[in-house]
Amino acid sequence: MAPPPSSLSPPKIPMELHEINRAKLTKSLRDHLSLSSRPLKGFVFLQGGEEQTRYCTDHAELFRQESYFAYLFGVKEPDFYGAIDIETGESILFAPRLPEDYAVWLGEIKPLSFFKERYMVSMVFYTDESATVLHDRFQGSGKPLLFLLHGLNTDSNKFSKPADFEGIEKFKTDMSTLHPILTECRVIKSEMEVALIQFANDISSEAHVEVMRKTKVGTKEYQLESMFLHHTYMYGGCRHCSYTCICATGENSSVLHYGHAAAPNDRTLQDGDMALLDMGAEYHFYGSDITCSFPVNGKFTSDQGLVYNAVLGAHDAVISSMKPGVSWVDMHKLAEKIILESLKKGCLLVGEVDDMMVERLGAVFMPHGLGHFLGIDTHDPGGYLKGATRPSTSGLKALRTSRELQEGMVITVEPGCYFINALLIPAMESSSASKFFNCEEIGRFKGFGGVRIESDVLVTTDGCVNMTKVPRKTCEIEAVMAGGPWPLKKSSNYSENGGES
Amino acid sequence: MAPPPSSLSPPKIPMELHEINRAKLTKSLRDHLSLSSRPLKGFVFLQGGEEQTRYCTDHAELFRQESYFAYLFGVKEPDFYGAIDIETGESILFAPRLPEDYAVWLGEIKPLSFFKERYMVSMVFYTDESATVLHDRFQGSGKPLLFLLHGLNTDSNKFSKPADFEGIEKFKTDMSTLHPILTECRVIKSEMEVALIQFANDISSEAHVEVMRKTKVGTKEYQLESMFLHHTYMYGGCRHCSYTCICATGENSSVLHYGHAAAPNDRTLQDGDMALLDMGAEYHFYGSDITCSFPVNGKFTSDQGLVYNAVLGAHDAVISSMKPGVSWVDMHKLAEKIILESLKKGCLLVGEVDDMMVERLGAVFMPHGLGHFLGIDTHDPGGYLKGATRPSTSGLKALRTSRELQEGMVITVEPGCYFINALLIPAMESSSASKFFNCEEIGRFKGFGGVRIESDVLVTTDGCVNMTKVPRKTCEIEAVMAGGPWPLKKSSNYSENGGES
Repeated sequence: MAPPPSSLSPPKIPMELHEINRAKLTKSLRDHLSLSSRPLKGFVFLQGGEEQTRYCTDHAELFRQESYFAYLFGVKEPDFYGAIDIETGESILFAPRLPEDYAVWLGEIKPLSFFKERYMVSMVFYTDESATVLHDRFQGSGKPLLFLLHGLNTDSNKFSKPADFEGIEKFKTDMSTLHPILTECRVIKSEMEVALIQFANDISSEAHVEVMRKTKVGTKEYQLESMFLHHTYMYGGCRHCSYTCICATGENSSVLHYGHAAAPNDRTLQDGDMALLDMGAEYHFYGSDITCSFPVNGKFTSDQGLVYNAVLGAHDAVISSMKPGVSWVDMHKLAEKIILESLKKGCLLVGEVDDMMVERLGAVFMPHGLGHFLGIDTHDPGGYLKGATRPSTSGLKALRTSRELQEGMVITVEPGCYFINALLIPAMESSSASKFFNCEEIGRFKGFGGVRIESDVLVTTDGCVNMTKVPRKTCEIEAVMAGGPWPLKKSSNYSENGGES
Repeated sequence: MAPPPSSLSPPKIPMELHEINRAKLTKSLRDHLSLSSRPLKGFVFLQGGEEQTRYCTDHAELFRQESYFAYLFGVKEPDFYGAIDIETGESILFAPRLPEDYAVWLGEIKPLSFFKERYMVSMVFYTDESATVLHDRFQGSGKPLLFLLHGLNTDSNKFSKPADFEGIEKFKTDMSTLHPILTECRVIKSEMEVALIQFANDISSEAHVEVMRKTKVGTKEYQLESMFLHHTYMYGGCRHCSYTCICATGENSSVLHYGHAAAPNDRTLQDGDMALLDMGAEYHFYGSDITCSFPVNGKFTSDQGLVYNAVLGAHDAVISSMKPGVSWVDMHKLAEKIILESLKKGCLLVGEVDDMMVERLGAVFMPHGLGHFLGIDTHDPGGYLKGATRPSTSGLKALRTSRELQEGMVITVEPGCYFINALLIPAMESSSASKFFNCEEIGRFKGFGGVRIESDVLVTTDGCVNMTKVPRKTCEIEAVMAGGPWPLKKSSNYSENGGES
């Protein structure tokens, strides 16, 4: 039996990407230090991730590098440290000294020169030499200064772990300067970074189409996940996903983060269900994040079409409006407004849409934010700059960024419309909001679940490019599910704006 | 395109299995307390696993329950606690109190009665009620006694984490009694546990055959992994593997634990390579652990056949000898002896095999132990009882158990023969061992890699049953790789002994 076809294969990984990242950080940091009249001396010093075992056992979890370390050094092995000399721009990796029997159990013990060449750094030493090496290379008087990574992740509300090693007391440490500067470097993607995110999008788009074609009534949700994972690994070499696959059908599609261990994609697909599949592969650390929604039997009912087109309208309108300088909060409101207008047109809502906006009715149907930065993390950091305040009203407070768009940002556009009892019932009973609901019409959507349409979008000089290439119009979805080709023979690329591609 | 066929589907999960596990523990613990004239009062109290996020991000790793907790309660959700009242045998689960917005983001908030029914426990409360509930239920005077889980995992050398919760200071705690007793319960499998391990073996065996059939020169090692993962998830509902897949070809097959992030199954298969695929799926916590070795082009050369049959001979001889009372150390030595005899017959070694055994030459070719207990953990605990000492000589010291076999144990039989420079060169240069090597003949095997053959074996009343059902004879492998049926029309089940099946 021939394997399912793919037009893709894993691209070569350019380690220059990380060299460019390091140069960008060094420049930013030097600029910052100059501005505050501080000496251009010291080392950026980061600790890479360590391999974890499962609880008290020796079951080793598949290691994935810590994202800041991956950004600067691209190292896939655990237990490394890395430094950048701010004065010279030289980069140093510190590799773990492996025990002799590593060669028997885990593989050849590579010489330091191997890592120097693979990761294109200036020099490589062993981790147990860190203190000595950094001291020896330091040209000033007193203790050398280490810029350590310590700062808040505004999605998790957790703090990054600053590097720690034996001998750290022999150094001065600065815990506040590095994090915001390095985080800001990650917000604007280089061409090479964009190319990797594009590949992750290409293979994931292809896998979504493959899954769409094979979806049928009677399938289990997890079988859709399995097909996706297989396609992206088999043909794209993607061993990791950006996040646990959300394969929600029927009522489950109103659970925004379905698919985790307590809701493990285990429902059987029923005739009449909508499927909401939020799945994205990762390639050399850089991710994708794509959601497709479609009827599992391949044909939209008019109700399904109504909700789907409300969301697609929002998705397309946002992408048409995106360009540098545009406020993401405004984009969120635009999406809300178009969804509310569509629901009104579909007779689910009554009254003035502007009044609904004041009442924050959009958040009843779309309780999550419109989108988030995407890169080495699915929720890439930098959404809120230091001092920025998070909007406080419902819906908007879920936004993972409130920034203005800038060229080089990659951000997801993922409007959704869900029928969530926990939100809908209180709203329909609220004295101020109940007047907007056509309860009889809405009653039909109990158990409908929800629709989300999510693309990854690159902000360009004067517009943006949609990096995600999946069937979006209802007619495209129906054609592909009926066995039609994808991409369509005469591709319309309807969702792009701006001149680049 | 039709998906690859499977004769299997995920079986129903019997929660009685965990009820039986709890009853077994309660009885063992009561027997132990009676013997030491201690009161039959107090609670077994365990903390389940908590969901982990990746470093400082909000990327949630797919949760997998802690194994001891899984054994007693079968709970798949994170953040639970569980107790057993030693006096009454009653079981209590403590579920986390979820915030209201869980319903929007993560799914319906289940009532406590849901968990009581799903997990067949006597009662369910919230975790924040633990201290109060256990105090209320305690009938004695003074502080109630909690038996907490604290003990050494002899594979990882790590200690299990005893439960911790607010209010624990209101209890007496016993940190030493529970661990050895509960561990020993896990060593002997019940019929229901065996049935799950059998299913994990069945679907993994089928997947191995599928991979074998699709292997060809030019494939990437990770594509074999992808096919395996897909088959076991798609048709077996196995979301987790027992361990990271080892897909080693060519020289990589001499790296015992190949496949991790630093050696990530990324080689391209070459004509003339052997493949060593060590892959096993897990179903409802219970695992499998299977290795197949075969030539990637589908035809054994005489050298490949020589090494393969040496290992197969050891594998079959061990399984033929296994029954209650047999020492696992003796089985390891038996495997070594047969491998050495075969290498001598193949002219790689010269001299007396008994002398080679004294010289511990077996450990040069098989540096790992013959096998390990298998269950909820791949390296299931209990290999060394308290006070047992680990053998100290090479090869034997790598054994994960030195116990005598008992009915109900499930243990892997995984002899191997590898050409590992790091071991072979020092041995060939050693004054005492060099005389055994026919250097010219062995030189031919530089870069050969290694062969491992691994089956999961259940010890029965008077023998054992091989639970793994894959082609083992070279003619079977060649037939299946050439497109022949599996199982063979007239199945020989050559590797079973004893009457049970």
